[in-house]
Amino acid sequence: MSHRYSLGLDFGTESARVLVVDIKDGRIAGQAAQAYAHGVIDQTLPTSGEKLPPDYALQHPQDWLDSLAAAAHAAIREARIDANSVIGIGVDFTSCTMLPVKADSTPLCLTPEFKNVPLAWPKLWKHHGAKAETQRINDIARERKEKWLARYGGTIGLEWFFPKMLETLAHAPSVYAAAEVFLEAGDWLVWQLVDGPFPRCAAGNLTRSTCQAGYKAMWNAKTGYPSRDYLKAINPRFADVVADKLPGMLRSPGRQAGVLSESSAALLHLRPGIPVSTTIIDAHSGVPGAGVASPSTMVMVLGTSSCHMLNSRIEQFAPGIAGVVEDGILPGYFGYETGQASVGDAFAWLVQTFGLSHETLSREAEKLAPGSGGVLAIDWFNGCRTPLMDANLSGAFVGLTLSTKPAQLYRALIEATAFGLRWIVEALQESGVPVRRFVASGGLPNKNPLLMQIYADVLNERITLAESDQSVALGAAILGCLAAGSEVTGYAHMSQAIHAMARQREDLSYRPDLRSRKAYEQIYPLYRTLCHCDGATANVMRQLRELTS
Amino acid sequence: MSHRYSLGLDFGTESARVLVVDIKDGRIAGQAAQAYAHGVIDQTLPTSGEKLPPDYALQHPQDWLDSLAAAAHAAIREARIDANSVIGIGVDFTSCTMLPVKADSTPLCLTPEFKNVPLAWPKLWKHHGAKAETQRINDIARERKEKWLARYGGTIGLEWFFPKMLETLAHAPSVYAAAEVFLEAGDWLVWQLVDGPFPRCAAGNLTRSTCQAGYKAMWNAKTGYPSRDYLKAINPRFADVVADKLPGMLRSPGRQAGVLSESSAALLHLRPGIPVSTTIIDAHSGVPGAGVASPSTMVMVLGTSSCHMLNSRIEQFAPGIAGVVEDGILPGYFGYETGQASVGDAFAWLVQTFGLSHETLSREAEKLAPGSGGVLAIDWFNGCRTPLMDANLSGAFVGLTLSTKPAQLYRALIEATAFGLRWIVEALQESGVPVRRFVASGGLPNKNPLLMQIYADVLNERITLAESDQSVALGAAILGCLAAGSEVTGYAHMSQAIHAMARQREDLSYRPDLRSRKAYEQIYPLYRTLCHCDGATANVMRQLRELTS
Repeated sequence: MSHRYSLGLDFGTESARVLVVDIKDGRIAGQAAQAYAHGVIDQTLPTSGEKLPPDYALQHPQDWLDSLAAAAHAAIREARIDANSVIGIGVDFTSCTMLPVKADSTPLCLTPEFKNVPLAWPKLWKHHGAKAETQRINDIARERKEKWLARYGGTIGLEWFFPKMLETLAHAPSVYAAAEVFLEAGDWLVWQLVDGPFPRCAAGNLTRSTCQAGYKAMWNAKTGYPSRDYLKAINPRFADVVADKLPGMLRSPGRQAGVLSESSAALLHLRPGIPVSTTIIDAHSGVPGAGVASPSTMVMVLGTSSCHMLNSRIEQFAPGIAGVVEDGILPGYFGYETGQASVGDAFAWLVQTFGLSHETLSREAEKLAPGSGGVLAIDWFNGCRTPLMDANLSGAFVGLTLSTKPAQLYRALIEATAFGLRWIVEALQESGVPVRRFVASGGLPNKNPLLMQIYADVLNERITLAESDQSVALGAAILGCLAAGSEVTGYAHMSQAIHAMARQREDLSYRPDLRSRKAYEQIYPLYRTLCHCDGATANVMRQLRELTS
Repeated sequence: MSHRYSLGLDFGTESARVLVVDIKDGRIAGQAAQAYAHGVIDQTLPTSGEKLPPDYALQHPQDWLDSLAAAAHAAIREARIDANSVIGIGVDFTSCTMLPVKADSTPLCLTPEFKNVPLAWPKLWKHHGAKAETQRINDIARERKEKWLARYGGTIGLEWFFPKMLETLAHAPSVYAAAEVFLEAGDWLVWQLVDGPFPRCAAGNLTRSTCQAGYKAMWNAKTGYPSRDYLKAINPRFADVVADKLPGMLRSPGRQAGVLSESSAALLHLRPGIPVSTTIIDAHSGVPGAGVASPSTMVMVLGTSSCHMLNSRIEQFAPGIAGVVEDGILPGYFGYETGQASVGDAFAWLVQTFGLSHETLSREAEKLAPGSGGVLAIDWFNGCRTPLMDANLSGAFVGLTLSTKPAQLYRALIEATAFGLRWIVEALQESGVPVRRFVASGGLPNKNPLLMQIYADVLNERITLAESDQSVALGAAILGCLAAGSEVTGYAHMSQAIHAMARQREDLSYRPDLRSRKAYEQIYPLYRTLCHCDGATANVMRQLRELTS
């Protein structure tokens, strides 16, 4: 049988990437990336040149289509494959990146009426304009003791979907009124593939991902979106936002959203009718992309920040989790997302702020014993995500003496992120969610063996490494394969496809060292003492933030 | 009337300095310093070449006499004065620098029998060989609830007199047995001047300073040295150490210990019969040297570490003070010594560890508002002296973010030392010891105006600066003038002499800035919370030290 391929379309913050992946073994036959022409729009609006407020981060929807087409052409050309051998397409996208559109999917920012209104443009995930709105959404939810709040560790994030809609209602009411649909960019992109491109689409053919909706829009398979009463309590004009502006059928990633439309097929130089998977958030795509199909395996995406994902048969509300969502990562499981807001960027802070060298620090840090010669760090340089979910916390070093060396601070930072990870694992387990295996992916594992060894020692667990350094885009391709269906692919079960197309490295894994593990058993409680949610350190951090910001 | 002069003999860690000072106005007519030939002996013994343990720091007694003679000749030559116009001599010395001698004042280390035994040599103040002995001295004192312990804030220091004697008993019993007198180097030096040099001296003519004895040897004007019962409980062979090995008459600094002997006059090229003051600890000499004669004025000697001295009419036991000693600094007052173990050397740590520039940091730090942009430091880089008296505490930074700059750490360190000082002042005041005025001396005040302004803002007090940058040696000269007596000098009262010979700067003082002061009123409580003696941070620091040392 000739080779068949799935495309993984990976929409990042700066560019779109296309992977052509052999569904038999996950081999990458071709790949290409294309930067967005407008990149991140955070200075001036491209149409009017208007200066944007400092919290703004927008994107241009046409960039997504243009970069996709260019990258797809190049990847397929590199792969030298017959376009007819592509049997599925999967899409991952940053989230919550969202936009207001008309019922035919035309972005409002591309209409003459709204092209000069910043809030008519897609808001990138890191757009931070909705501070007051987030506060109100949380306050009212707590007041009303909304049950769904527990699924998000008790706090709705500034970057999420409802805060971003409410911001538009508050600051650009005409945009809000004209928006017939608010949706995630990933959902919009899939809609374009199966029904478009715009303005051909019909709202009736819109599929939304349970991943994006579940993690970012407080949607739940059993109870749907937040209630009208709750939304009305926030703002009477917000009461009917769900009924009025959130049409669409919800499906899990890996389920077919539709098949490639004729126009979109022409755009991508592919045949029409190829199954397209419902979209997934980029980080979550790394779970199948790391070759993980089974529950209770934590996939740790380690980078500037870290995101730890887990599928489980059990639904529990753990403190400070970013979310627990049924069918949120893979169909049939409750998907847990937890996170550490600052990991690689804390190391980079140390290196850059003091003009040091990663290599030298790493070499020196490796010679130190667990405990970094008496220095203990707190890794909250960008606040604490899981489990405390508190952006007002900050980083710290304790145990400094006149002979403390930079390498001690560096190792202490690594150890602190390891302690923070162990805390997350314990919080899940104490909530009744088992965590049994650990797979690392992302930028850090292959770059920083010291970090990996410390993580294994602190967790007292073996850690394996995702084989592919493209696990996010590879995960999207796997979802494309799943969307094609078992009759086409021959994979009877989801897990068969995942294990065939993605694996962990066999040549390298990290196992706990007995002596280090014992040392960390003694130091970890000190980290927990220092990091106590209502402890002196955390309270001082919060008050400092209040007094000096 | 022709000019008359007092000599200030200042024995530091590395050299002896001689000041020739006009007693009319404190003008320095001449000065010279001479390094000790053997410096600090911490590697090998000069006689045998034997390698010394890492905790050892010894000196050579002949160095003191040789450097004194050379510096005195040069200073008098520079001053171009008639040797007959010298009317008094004062001596300050590092402490507790101590040595075992024979009854005729001959140092044991200069005898053939003991020249090769390290513990027969003078132990410099920073000799740290007596760790176990200090522990035992404290343990037994606490067990027996010795009343005098409260005068030292509850803890006897590793560098003090009894630990150093007990170390000799434990580790060099033959030296201990042969020692007819143990004494402070300052006392030995004065003894040489008035009765020597050795081997001419008689134990009957030995004067000991109430300053050295009071601060370093648990001596008290009313109760004397610790009791025989206590010393026996430490070690039966230590029971009679006071009766057997601590002869001498106790006198306050500024009181005459005797007059210059013929041989010593010849050594210094001076006339015999010049009154010589009882010695004083170098730091304490800075009180008269800063022009401070009155009670309730804190003299802050700000340097690598800081020492804050205060005379008071009131005797109270404040927590963590280095000591309260009657006649300890000036006759007629209770002298308080308090300290911060790490000040300038914490700033130097930051600068040197990260290869930064003091000038750049200082310039950037000056632009920051109180609170260092949200960074709070703990200044215990060398443990906490007053008020917690705990060497196992350590430094910390809290409030770090990904945008924290080195200048924020620098300013936070300065602010932390200011908060630490305010804590000391409050501890004294809460114990019933008033502190009304503040005079700064030492190396930092003229070098670091930002620090001075922050201290004024945090204390909410005006701070004046000692006029002389030689306040320690100047203080010794003032004591020499006092020892000469009012009939010779014309100064009816001690305060007249002090105010005539030393002053504070009139051109410069630091006053609290209203806005900064208000900001610090809010931040200081956060420092206190973080620094709570039994708080999480302090406990974590202690456990970290235990686990990793």
